[in-house]
Amino acid sequence: MADPPDRISSEPDEEIMRATYRALQEYGYADLTIKRIAEEYGKSTAAVHYHYDTKDDLLAAFLDYLLDQFVATIHEVETTDPEQRLELLLDKLLIAPEDHHDMLIAMLEMRSQAPYKEAFADRFQQNDEYIGYLLRTVIDHGIAEDVFTDVDSEHVARALMTIIDGARTRAVVMDETDTLPTARRAADEYVNAVLRTDADDSEET
Amino acid sequence: MADPPDRISSEPDEEIMRATYRALQEYGYADLTIKRIAEEYGKSTAAVHYHYDTKDDLLAAFLDYLLDQFVATIHEVETTDPEQRLELLLDKLLIAPEDHHDMLIAMLEMRSQAPYKEAFADRFQQNDEYIGYLLRTVIDHGIAEDVFTDVDSEHVARALMTIIDGARTRAVVMDETDTLPTARRAADEYVNAVLRTDADDSEET
Repeated sequence: MADPPDRISSEPDEEIMRATYRALQEYGYADLTIKRIAEEYGKSTAAVHYHYDTKDDLLAAFLDYLLDQFVATIHEVETTDPEQRLELLLDKLLIAPEDHHDMLIAMLEMRSQAPYKEAFADRFQQNDEYIGYLLRTVIDHGIAEDVFTDVDSEHVARALMTIIDGARTRAVVMDETDTLPTARRAADEYVNAVLRTDADDSEET
Repeated sequence: MADPPDRISSEPDEEIMRATYRALQEYGYADLTIKRIAEEYGKSTAAVHYHYDTKDDLLAAFLDYLLDQFVATIHEVETTDPEQRLELLLDKLLIAPEDHHDMLIAMLEMRSQAPYKEAFADRFQQNDEYIGYLLRTVIDHGIAEDVFTDVDSEHVARALMTIIDGARTRAVVMDETDTLPTARRAADEYVNAVLRTDADDSEET
Protein backbone atom coordinates (compact mmCIF):
# COMPACT_ATOMS: atom_id res chain seq x y z
CA MET A 1 0.00 0.00 0.00
CA ALA A 2 3.03 2.33 -0.35
CA ASP A 3 2.48 3.17 -4.00
CA PRO A 4 0.23 6.01 -5.12
CA PRO A 5 -3.36 4.80 -5.22
CA ASP A 6 -4.09 3.25 -8.59
CA ARG A 7 -7.71 2.36 -9.17
CA ILE A 8 -7.86 -1.41 -9.50
CA SER A 9 -11.43 -1.57 -10.71
CA SER A 10 -13.82 1.26 -11.46
CA GLU A 11 -16.88 -0.66 -10.36
CA PRO A 12 -17.10 0.36 -6.70
CA ASP A 13 -16.26 3.90 -7.86
CA GLU A 14 -19.13 3.83 -10.32
CA GLU A 15 -21.49 2.77 -7.55
CA ILE A 16 -20.21 5.47 -5.22
CA MET A 17 -20.59 8.03 -8.01
CA ARG A 18 -24.20 7.01 -8.56
CA ALA A 19 -24.80 7.18 -4.81
CA THR A 20 -23.25 10.67 -4.77
CA TYR A 21 -25.52 11.72 -7.63
CA ARG A 22 -28.61 10.61 -5.72
CA ALA A 23 -27.41 12.12 -2.43
CA LEU A 24 -26.65 15.47 -4.13
CA GLN A 25 -30.09 15.51 -5.72
CA GLU A 26 -31.73 14.79 -2.39
CA TYR A 27 -29.71 16.95 0.02
CA GLY A 28 -27.94 19.53 -2.14
CA TYR A 29 -24.25 20.38 -1.79
CA ALA A 30 -24.36 22.16 1.58
CA ASP A 31 -26.05 19.26 3.41
CA LEU A 32 -24.13 16.50 1.70
CA THR A 33 -22.17 14.24 4.04
CA ILE A 34 -20.12 11.08 3.58
CA LYS A 35 -22.70 9.42 5.84
CA ARG A 36 -25.53 10.28 3.45
CA ILE A 37 -23.50 9.12 0.46
CA ALA A 38 -22.71 5.86 2.32
CA GLU A 39 -26.43 5.36 3.00
CA GLU A 40 -27.20 5.70 -0.72
CA TYR A 41 -24.24 3.41 -1.45
CA GLY A 42 -25.67 0.85 0.97
CA LYS A 43 -22.36 0.44 2.79
CA SER A 44 -20.47 1.95 5.72
CA THR A 45 -18.77 5.33 5.71
CA ALA A 46 -15.49 3.38 6.07
CA ALA A 47 -16.25 1.72 2.72
CA VAL A 48 -16.56 5.18 1.14
CA HIS A 49 -13.42 6.45 2.89
CA TYR A 50 -11.53 3.43 1.59
CA HIS A 51 -11.84 5.06 -1.86
CA TYR A 52 -11.84 8.76 -0.95
CA ASP A 53 -10.09 10.45 1.94
CA THR A 54 -12.35 13.48 2.14
CA LYS A 55 -15.71 14.67 0.88
CA ASP A 56 -13.92 17.18 -1.37
CA ASP A 57 -11.79 14.40 -2.92
CA LEU A 58 -14.95 12.44 -3.58
CA LEU A 59 -16.69 15.47 -5.10
CA ALA A 60 -13.69 16.26 -7.33
CA ALA A 61 -13.88 12.65 -8.57
CA PHE A 62 -17.62 13.15 -9.03
CA LEU A 63 -16.98 16.14 -11.32
CA ASP A 64 -14.59 13.95 -13.35
CA TYR A 65 -17.33 11.34 -13.50
CA LEU A 66 -19.85 13.88 -14.82
CA LEU A 67 -17.40 14.97 -17.50
CA ASP A 68 -16.88 11.31 -18.50
CA GLN A 69 -20.65 10.88 -18.69
CA PHE A 70 -20.91 13.96 -20.88
CA VAL A 71 -18.11 12.73 -23.13
CA ALA A 72 -20.01 9.45 -23.50
CA THR A 73 -23.20 11.23 -24.59
CA ILE A 74 -21.15 13.25 -27.11
CA HIS A 75 -19.92 10.04 -28.66
CA GLU A 76 -23.54 9.31 -29.45
CA VAL A 77 -23.49 12.29 -31.84
CA GLU A 78 -22.40 10.37 -34.90
CA THR A 79 -22.96 12.91 -37.65
CA THR A 80 -19.93 14.71 -39.02
CA ASP A 81 -22.00 17.30 -40.90
CA PRO A 82 -20.91 20.55 -39.21
CA GLU A 83 -24.32 22.26 -39.17
CA GLN A 84 -26.14 19.20 -37.82
CA ARG A 85 -23.37 18.42 -35.38
CA LEU A 86 -23.37 21.93 -33.91
CA GLU A 87 -27.16 21.75 -33.49
CA LEU A 88 -26.93 18.40 -31.73
CA LEU A 89 -24.13 19.59 -29.42
CA LEU A 90 -26.21 22.63 -28.42
CA ASP A 91 -29.18 20.31 -27.82
CA LYS A 92 -27.09 18.17 -25.47
CA LEU A 93 -25.78 21.25 -23.67
CA LEU A 94 -29.11 23.04 -23.36
CA ILE A 95 -31.84 20.45 -23.13
CA ALA A 96 -31.97 18.99 -19.65
CA PRO A 97 -33.54 15.73 -18.59
CA GLU A 98 -36.66 16.05 -16.41
CA ASP A 99 -34.95 15.15 -13.14
CA HIS A 100 -31.99 17.42 -13.78
CA HIS A 101 -33.08 20.48 -11.81
CA ASP A 102 -31.73 19.31 -8.45
CA MET A 103 -28.40 18.54 -10.07
CA LEU A 104 -28.26 22.04 -11.62
CA ILE A 105 -28.75 23.44 -8.11
CA ALA A 106 -25.94 21.30 -6.66
CA MET A 107 -23.65 22.20 -9.58
CA LEU A 108 -24.22 25.94 -9.08
CA GLU A 109 -23.37 25.54 -5.39
CA MET A 110 -20.15 23.78 -6.35
CA ARG A 111 -19.35 26.37 -9.03
CA SER A 112 -19.74 29.14 -6.46
CA GLN A 113 -17.11 27.33 -4.35
CA ALA A 114 -14.56 27.23 -7.19
CA PRO A 115 -12.71 30.34 -5.89
CA TYR A 116 -12.18 28.55 -2.54
CA LYS A 117 -11.57 24.98 -3.72
CA GLU A 118 -8.90 24.53 -6.34
CA ALA A 119 -9.91 20.92 -7.04
CA PHE A 120 -13.41 22.13 -8.03
CA ALA A 121 -12.04 25.04 -10.10
CA ASP A 122 -9.69 22.64 -11.96
CA ARG A 123 -12.56 20.33 -12.86
CA PHE A 124 -14.93 23.06 -14.00
CA GLN A 125 -12.18 24.61 -16.11
CA GLN A 126 -11.24 21.24 -17.58
CA ASN A 127 -14.90 20.57 -18.43
CA ASP A 128 -15.13 24.01 -20.00
CA GLU A 129 -11.96 23.41 -22.01
CA TYR A 130 -13.41 20.21 -23.38
CA ILE A 131 -16.73 21.77 -24.39
CA GLY A 132 -14.87 24.73 -25.90
CA TYR A 133 -12.72 22.32 -27.89
CA LEU A 134 -15.79 20.49 -29.23
CA LEU A 135 -17.48 23.72 -30.30
CA ARG A 136 -14.33 25.21 -31.89
CA THR A 137 -13.67 21.99 -33.78
CA VAL A 138 -17.13 21.80 -35.33
CA ILE A 139 -17.06 25.53 -36.20
CA ASP A 140 -13.59 25.24 -37.80
CA HIS A 141 -14.79 22.20 -39.70
CA GLY A 142 -17.80 24.15 -40.99
CA ILE A 143 -15.52 27.01 -42.05
CA ALA A 144 -13.21 24.59 -43.88
CA GLU A 145 -16.24 23.10 -45.68
CA ASP A 146 -17.53 26.58 -46.56
CA VAL A 147 -20.88 26.14 -44.79
CA PHE A 148 -19.94 28.64 -42.03
CA THR A 149 -18.61 32.16 -42.38
CA ASP A 150 -14.88 32.52 -41.65
CA VAL A 151 -15.14 33.74 -38.04
CA ASP A 152 -13.00 33.70 -34.91
CA SER A 153 -14.13 30.23 -33.79
CA GLU A 154 -12.55 30.69 -30.36
CA HIS A 155 -14.75 33.73 -29.71
CA VAL A 156 -17.92 32.13 -31.09
CA ALA A 157 -17.38 29.02 -28.96
CA ARG A 158 -16.96 31.16 -25.84
CA ALA A 159 -20.01 33.27 -26.67
CA LEU A 160 -22.08 30.06 -26.92
CA MET A 161 -20.64 28.83 -23.62
CA THR A 162 -21.61 32.13 -22.03
CA ILE A 163 -25.22 31.53 -23.15
CA ILE A 164 -25.05 27.95 -21.81
CA ASP A 165 -23.64 28.99 -18.41
CA GLY A 166 -26.19 31.81 -18.18
CA ALA A 167 -29.01 29.36 -18.77
CA ARG A 168 -27.67 26.99 -16.12
CA THR A 169 -27.45 29.78 -13.56
CA ARG A 170 -30.86 31.23 -14.43
CA ALA A 171 -32.50 27.79 -14.25
CA VAL A 172 -31.50 27.71 -10.57
CA VAL A 173 -32.03 31.32 -9.51
CA MET A 174 -35.04 32.46 -11.52
CA ASP A 175 -38.59 31.25 -11.17
CA GLU A 176 -39.03 30.54 -14.87
CA THR A 177 -39.98 27.35 -16.64
CA ASP A 178 -38.54 28.15 -20.06
CA THR A 179 -34.98 29.22 -19.24
CA LEU A 180 -33.34 26.44 -21.23
CA PRO A 181 -35.62 26.77 -24.32
CA THR A 182 -35.04 30.56 -24.29
CA ALA A 183 -31.27 29.98 -24.23
CA ARG A 184 -31.53 27.30 -26.93
CA ARG A 185 -33.38 29.76 -29.16
CA ALA A 186 -30.86 32.53 -28.41
CA ALA A 187 -27.99 30.15 -29.27
CA ASP A 188 -29.67 29.38 -32.61
CA GLU A 189 -30.22 33.06 -33.35
CA TYR A 190 -26.57 33.74 -32.50
CA VAL A 191 -25.31 30.86 -34.66
CA ASN A 192 -27.47 31.96 -37.59
CA ALA A 193 -26.24 35.52 -37.23
CA VAL A 194 -22.51 34.94 -36.98
CA LEU A 195 -21.97 31.65 -38.79
CA ARG A 196 -24.55 31.76 -41.55
CA THR A 197 -24.40 35.33 -42.85
CA ASP A 198 -24.71 35.02 -46.60
CA ALA A 199 -23.01 38.36 -47.22
CA ASP A 200 -19.55 37.52 -48.54
CA ASP A 201 -17.48 40.00 -46.60
CA SER A 202 -14.87 37.39 -45.80
CA GLU A 203 -13.05 37.39 -49.14
CA GLU A 204 -10.23 39.62 -48.05
CA THR A 205 -7.73 36.77 -48.41
CA MET B 1 -41.86 49.69 20.01
CA ALA B 2 -45.05 47.67 19.35
CA ASP B 3 -45.53 48.83 15.78
CA PRO B 4 -43.89 47.09 12.85
CA PRO B 5 -40.35 48.40 12.40
CA ASP B 6 -40.39 51.50 10.22
CA ARG B 7 -37.00 52.80 9.24
CA ILE B 8 -36.64 56.20 10.85
CA SER B 9 -33.53 57.25 9.00
CA SER B 10 -31.65 55.40 6.29
CA GLU B 11 -28.28 56.66 7.39
CA PRO B 12 -27.22 53.92 9.80
CA ASP B 13 -28.58 51.45 7.23
CA GLU B 14 -26.41 52.97 4.55
CA GLU B 15 -23.36 52.62 6.78
CA ILE B 16 -24.22 49.01 7.62
CA MET B 17 -24.73 48.29 3.93
CA ARG B 18 -21.29 49.70 3.11
CA ALA B 19 -19.80 47.66 5.94
CA THR B 20 -21.54 44.56 4.56
CA TYR B 21 -20.12 45.30 1.12
CA ARG B 22 -16.58 45.45 2.51
CA ALA B 23 -17.04 42.38 4.72
CA LEU B 24 -18.43 40.36 1.80
CA GLN B 25 -15.49 41.38 -0.37
CA GLU B 26 -13.05 40.39 2.33
CA TYR B 27 -14.55 37.18 3.69
CA GLY B 28 -16.98 35.95 1.02
CA TYR B 29 -20.49 34.78 1.77
CA ALA B 30 -19.70 31.54 3.59
CA ASP B 31 -17.42 33.17 6.17
CA LEU B 32 -19.51 36.30 6.66
CA THR B 33 -20.68 36.88 10.23
CA ILE B 34 -22.55 39.68 11.99
CA LYS B 35 -19.37 40.11 14.04
CA ARG B 36 -17.28 40.80 10.96
CA ILE B 37 -19.90 43.20 9.60
CA ALA B 38 -19.98 44.96 12.99
CA GLU B 39 -16.18 45.30 12.89
CA GLU B 40 -16.38 46.98 9.48
CA TYR B 41 -19.26 49.10 10.77
CA GLY B 42 -17.10 50.15 13.74
CA LYS B 43 -19.84 49.34 16.28
CA SER B 44 -21.04 46.40 18.36
CA THR B 45 -22.93 43.40 17.02
CA ALA B 46 -25.87 44.65 19.12
CA ALA B 47 -25.84 47.84 17.04
CA VAL B 48 -26.18 45.73 13.90
CA HIS B 49 -28.86 43.51 15.43
CA TYR B 50 -30.79 46.65 16.40
CA HIS B 51 -31.46 47.05 12.66
CA TYR B 52 -31.49 43.43 11.47
CA ASP B 53 -32.60 40.36 13.42
CA THR B 54 -30.58 37.83 11.46
CA LYS B 55 -27.72 37.70 8.99
CA ASP B 56 -30.16 36.58 6.30
CA ASP B 57 -32.42 39.61 6.98
CA LEU B 58 -29.37 41.84 6.65
CA LEU B 59 -28.29 40.15 3.42
CA ALA B 60 -31.78 40.42 1.94
CA ALA B 61 -31.65 44.17 2.71
CA PHE B 62 -28.19 44.24 1.15
CA LEU B 63 -29.58 42.81 -2.10
CA ASP B 64 -32.24 45.57 -2.05
CA TYR B 65 -29.45 48.06 -1.52
CA LEU B 66 -27.50 46.74 -4.52
CA LEU B 67 -30.61 47.02 -6.68
CA ASP B 68 -31.10 50.62 -5.49
CA GLN B 69 -27.47 51.35 -6.35
CA PHE B 70 -27.96 49.85 -9.78
CA VAL B 71 -31.15 51.88 -10.33
CA ALA B 72 -29.17 55.01 -9.43
CA THR B 73 -26.47 54.26 -12.02
CA ILE B 74 -29.21 53.68 -14.62
CA HIS B 75 -30.57 57.16 -13.94
CA GLU B 76 -27.19 58.44 -15.10
CA VAL B 77 -28.02 57.11 -18.57
CA GLU B 78 -29.69 60.24 -19.84
CA THR B 79 -30.00 59.52 -23.53
CA THR B 80 -33.41 58.47 -24.84
CA ASP B 81 -32.04 57.40 -28.22
CA PRO B 82 -32.89 53.66 -28.25
CA GLU B 83 -29.70 52.44 -29.93
CA GLN B 84 -27.40 54.46 -27.69
CA ARG B 85 -29.43 53.68 -24.62
CA LEU B 86 -29.31 49.91 -25.22
CA GLU B 87 -25.53 50.11 -25.70
CA LEU B 88 -25.09 52.05 -22.47
CA LEU B 89 -27.32 49.65 -20.51
CA LEU B 90 -25.28 46.70 -21.76
CA ASP B 91 -22.10 48.56 -20.79
CA LYS B 92 -23.39 49.04 -17.25
CA LEU B 93 -24.43 45.40 -17.03
CA LEU B 94 -21.26 43.94 -18.51
CA ILE B 95 -18.38 46.24 -17.63
CA ALA B 96 -17.30 45.67 -14.06
CA PRO B 97 -15.31 48.05 -11.90
CA GLU B 98 -11.79 46.86 -11.02
CA ASP B 99 -12.59 45.84 -7.47
CA HIS B 100 -15.76 44.03 -8.44
CA HIS B 101 -14.43 40.47 -8.67
CA ASP B 102 -14.83 39.63 -4.98
CA MET B 103 -18.40 40.91 -5.10
CA LEU B 104 -19.15 38.71 -8.13
CA ILE B 105 -17.91 35.73 -6.10
CA ALA B 106 -20.12 36.63 -3.12
CA MET B 107 -23.11 37.19 -5.42
CA LEU B 108 -22.69 33.78 -7.07
CA GLU B 109 -22.59 32.16 -3.62
CA MET B 110 -25.82 33.94 -2.72
CA ARG B 111 -27.43 33.05 -6.05
CA SER B 112 -26.61 29.39 -5.46
CA GLN B 113 -28.52 29.65 -2.15
CA ALA B 114 -31.67 31.03 -3.82
CA PRO B 115 -33.35 27.59 -3.90
CA TYR B 116 -32.93 27.35 -0.10
CA LYS B 117 -33.56 30.97 0.93
CA GLU B 118 -36.77 32.52 -0.34
CA ALA B 119 -35.71 36.03 0.67
CA PHE B 120 -32.65 35.75 -1.61
CA ALA B 121 -34.67 34.24 -4.46
CA ASP B 122 -37.23 37.07 -4.18
CA ARG B 123 -34.52 39.73 -4.46
CA PHE B 124 -32.69 38.13 -7.36
CA GLN B 125 -35.97 37.71 -9.21
CA GLN B 126 -37.01 41.28 -8.47
CA ASN B 127 -33.64 42.55 -9.70
CA ASP B 128 -34.04 40.42 -12.82
CA GLU B 129 -37.56 41.76 -13.38
CA TYR B 130 -36.25 45.31 -13.24
CA ILE B 131 -33.40 44.70 -15.69
CA GLY B 132 -35.79 42.82 -17.98
CA TYR B 133 -38.18 45.77 -17.87
CA LEU B 134 -35.39 48.23 -18.78
CA LEU B 135 -34.26 46.13 -21.72
CA ARG B 136 -37.79 45.46 -23.03
CA THR B 137 -38.67 49.15 -22.78
CA VAL B 138 -35.69 50.34 -24.79
CA ILE B 139 -36.22 47.58 -27.40
CA ASP B 140 -39.95 48.42 -27.73
CA HIS B 141 -39.03 52.07 -28.02
CA GLY B 142 -36.57 51.29 -30.83
CA ILE B 143 -39.23 49.22 -32.60
CA ALA B 144 -41.74 52.08 -32.30
CA GLU B 145 -39.16 54.48 -33.74
CA ASP B 146 -38.36 52.06 -36.57
CA VAL B 147 -34.67 51.75 -35.71
CA PHE B 148 -35.07 48.16 -34.51
CA THR B 149 -36.71 45.22 -36.28
CA ASP B 150 -40.14 44.27 -34.97
CA VAL B 151 -39.09 41.40 -32.69
CA ASP B 152 -40.39 39.66 -29.56
CA SER B 153 -38.79 42.13 -27.12
CA GLU B 154 -39.52 39.86 -24.16
CA HIS B 155 -37.44 37.09 -25.72
CA VAL B 156 -34.61 39.39 -26.82
CA ALA B 157 -34.39 40.90 -23.32
CA ARG B 158 -34.19 37.45 -21.75
CA ALA B 159 -31.59 36.29 -24.27
CA LEU B 160 -29.43 39.29 -23.33
CA MET B 161 -29.92 38.55 -19.63
CA THR B 162 -28.82 34.96 -20.26
CA ILE B 163 -25.57 36.30 -21.75
CA ILE B 164 -25.16 38.67 -18.76
CA ASP B 165 -25.76 35.93 -16.17
CA GLY B 166 -23.44 33.58 -18.06
CA ALA B 167 -20.68 36.18 -17.96
CA ARG B 168 -21.16 36.75 -14.23
CA THR B 169 -20.94 33.03 -13.51
CA ARG B 170 -17.95 32.47 -15.80
CA ALA B 171 -16.09 35.43 -14.29
CA VAL B 172 -16.15 33.53 -10.98
CA VAL B 173 -15.62 29.94 -12.10
CA MET B 174 -13.28 30.22 -15.08
CA ASP B 175 -9.69 31.31 -15.03
CA GLU B 176 -10.13 33.86 -17.81
CA THR B 177 -9.44 37.55 -17.85
CA ASP B 178 -11.70 38.53 -20.72
CA THR B 179 -15.00 36.94 -19.75
CA LEU B 180 -16.89 40.23 -19.56
CA PRO B 181 -15.47 41.70 -22.81
CA THR B 182 -16.28 38.41 -24.60
CA ALA B 183 -19.87 38.61 -23.34
CA ARG B 184 -20.09 42.31 -24.24
CA ARG B 185 -19.02 41.50 -27.79
CA ALA B 186 -21.46 38.55 -27.97
CA ALA B 187 -24.28 40.83 -26.76
CA ASP B 188 -23.43 43.32 -29.53
CA GLU B 189 -23.34 40.60 -32.16
CA TYR B 190 -26.69 39.33 -30.92
CA VAL B 191 -28.24 42.81 -30.90
CA ASN B 192 -26.94 43.54 -34.40
CA ALA B 193 -28.30 40.22 -35.64
CA VAL B 194 -31.80 40.32 -34.22
CA LEU B 195 -32.54 44.04 -33.89
CA ARG B 196 -30.71 45.53 -36.86
CA THR B 197 -31.41 43.11 -39.70
CA ASP B 198 -31.95 45.28 -42.74
CA ALA B 199 -33.90 42.60 -44.58
CA ASP B 200 -37.55 43.66 -44.41
CA ASP B 201 -39.13 40.35 -43.58
CA SER B 202 -41.38 41.93 -40.98
CA GLU B 203 -43.95 43.40 -43.34
CA GLU B 204 -46.48 40.62 -43.02
CA THR B 205 -49.02 42.85 -41.30
